[in-house]
Amino acid sequence: MSKKRTVFFVSDRTGITAETLGHSLLTQFDVALEQVTLPFVDSPERAQLALRQIEEANQASGERSIVFSTVIDNEVRGILRSANAVMFDFFETFIAPLEQELKVPSSHMVGRSHGLLDNTTYDIRIDAMNYALNHDDGVTTHHYSQADVILVGVSRSGKTPTCIYMALQYGVYAANYPLTEEDLEDGGLPKILEPYRAKLYGLTIRPDRLEHIRTERRPNSRYASPQQCQYEVARAEAIFRRENIPFINTTTMSIEEIATTILHERKLKRRLY
Amino acid sequence: MSKKRTVFFVSDRTGITAETLGHSLLTQFDVALEQVTLPFVDSPERAQLALRQIEEANQASGERSIVFSTVIDNEVRGILRSANAVMFDFFETFIAPLEQELKVPSSHMVGRSHGLLDNTTYDIRIDAMNYALNHDDGVTTHHYSQADVILVGVSRSGKTPTCIYMALQYGVYAANYPLTEEDLEDGGLPKILEPYRAKLYGLTIRPDRLEHIRTERRPNSRYASPQQCQYEVARAEAIFRRENIPFINTTTMSIEEIATTILHERKLKRRLY
Repeated sequence: MSKKRTVFFVSDRTGITAETLGHSLLTQFDVALEQVTLPFVDSPERAQLALRQIEEANQASGERSIVFSTVIDNEVRGILRSANAVMFDFFETFIAPLEQELKVPSSHMVGRSHGLLDNTTYDIRIDAMNYALNHDDGVTTHHYSQADVILVGVSRSGKTPTCIYMALQYGVYAANYPLTEEDLEDGGLPKILEPYRAKLYGLTIRPDRLEHIRTERRPNSRYASPQQCQYEVARAEAIFRRENIPFINTTTMSIEEIATTILHERKLKRRLY
Repeated sequence: MSKKRTVFFVSDRTGITAETLGHSLLTQFDVALEQVTLPFVDSPERAQLALRQIEEANQASGERSIVFSTVIDNEVRGILRSANAVMFDFFETFIAPLEQELKVPSSHMVGRSHGLLDNTTYDIRIDAMNYALNHDDGVTTHHYSQADVILVGVSRSGKTPTCIYMALQYGVYAANYPLTEEDLEDGGLPKILEPYRAKLYGLTIRPDRLEHIRTERRPNSRYASPQQCQYEVARAEAIFRRENIPFINTTTMSIEEIATTILHERKLKRRLY
C-alpha cells in the first residue's frame, strides 16, 4: 500500500513560521497529506539529512514531496533546492522585493524570529503569563487594577486559555472572574467587579457545548447536567446584558479567535509584536 | 515631524498568520516601522475601511505603506489590491502553484486556519493545558504516568511557560517538577521521578539571568541572591549529568525554541498540527 504524499516544513529554527504558512495554505485543499516538520536545519549536514528524508518520502508515496521552507542561509537553501520536491521558499519569494522596497539589504541572520529574543520580550511574556495564572480563580482580586482586561463567565466558558494566550501572544495582562452560584442567583454585577467595569468582557457558550466540556471533567454531576448548564448560561448572559458588559459566544471559536476579538474590540494595548 | 512608515497585517480572520509571516521577514531588516494589524477584514465594507487606514498612514509618513495580506476572498482581495501600497499577498503568491501541483482547486473558504476549528482540536488543547496547569507544582504527581514529558529544573528556569506552550501548540501533556532545596541537597534523582526516567527533561539557566528573574519577584531575598542562584544551578546540573537526564540551557531561548527543541529531541508525539 502506498503512503500519503508528504509535506515538509523545513526551518533553520523552530519551524513554527513554516508550519503556520503551510497550514494556512493547505487548509484550502481537501487533500490528505503526511506532515513532517524539520526544525533546526541550520548547516549543510542537516540539509543533506533533510534531502535524504525527502527522498525517502518520495519513494514511499510515489509522489514528489511538497516543501515549505523558511530557511535563510544561502548555502543551506542551495542544498535544499536540489531536492526532488515542489519547493515553496518563503524567504526567496519575499525577501528580494522587500529589499528593493526598503532599500536596504536583509541581514540574512538566522534566528531573529521566535528565538534569541531580547530578555525584555521574554520578561514581558512571563510576567503577563504569571499574572494570568495568579488571577485565574476570582479569589486573588487585589491586583485587578493592574489588569488590562478581566474576563467574566461561568466555569469552563474559555476564560483561562484565553487569558494565557493573550499573555503569551500579546503581553496583555488578563485576569478572569468565574461567576459563582451566588453571583448568578443575585443577578447583579458582583461587587468586586464594580470598580473595573471598563475592563470587563464576558464569555458565553452554547449550553450543550458547555455540558460536553463539563462532562469530560465531572461526568454525571449536577455541575455538568443540561439543566445546570442552561441555567448558568442564561443567568450569565442576563447579567452581561443588564450591566452592559460586551460579550462573545465562544462555542465555535478557537482560542486565537477569542483572544484576537477581545484585543480588538476592547482596543487593548499589546506589549508584544 | 513625519511618522515612521507603516506596515499593515491584513487578514480575514485573526491576523496571526499574517503577523507571523510578516514578522519573520521584517526581522531581517534593521528598519523601524509602525505596525498595525487589521483583523476580520472579511467584507467589501471592511476592505474599504482598511484602504482608508492605509491611505492615512501613507499621508502621515509620506511613504507608501507595506501590506502583508492573508485575505482569501477574491472580492476583498481585489479591493485591497487597489491600495496605494506595497502588497505582499500570501494567498495569491502560493495558492496558484499549489493548485497546479495538487491538481485540485482550492476551496477559497475563509476561516479554516485558527478558527472554526472542530471541537476535537479545541478539546485536545484545553485538556493538555489543564494538564499542564494541574501538574505545575510537583505536588500533584499522581498523574505523571499520563505525561508525555516531565520538565525538571530549579524554580524560574522556564518550566511553566514551556509546559503551557507545548500544550497549546502541540497538544502535548507536559508536567513539571521543581527541584526543591532537599532535592538539591540530596543530589540524587528525587524518588518520585524514578519511575519516569524516560520522560524527564532538564532545564537549566545562567545563574545571573536566574538572579534577574527571581529579583523581579522577590527583591533582596535569599531566593534571588547570587550565591543561592549559583548554588541551585550547579547542583541541578550535577543531578542532570549524574542521572543522565538530557537538559538544555534556556538563558537565550524563546519559549517557542525551548518547546520545539524538547519536542524534537524527545521525539514526542504531537496531537495537533
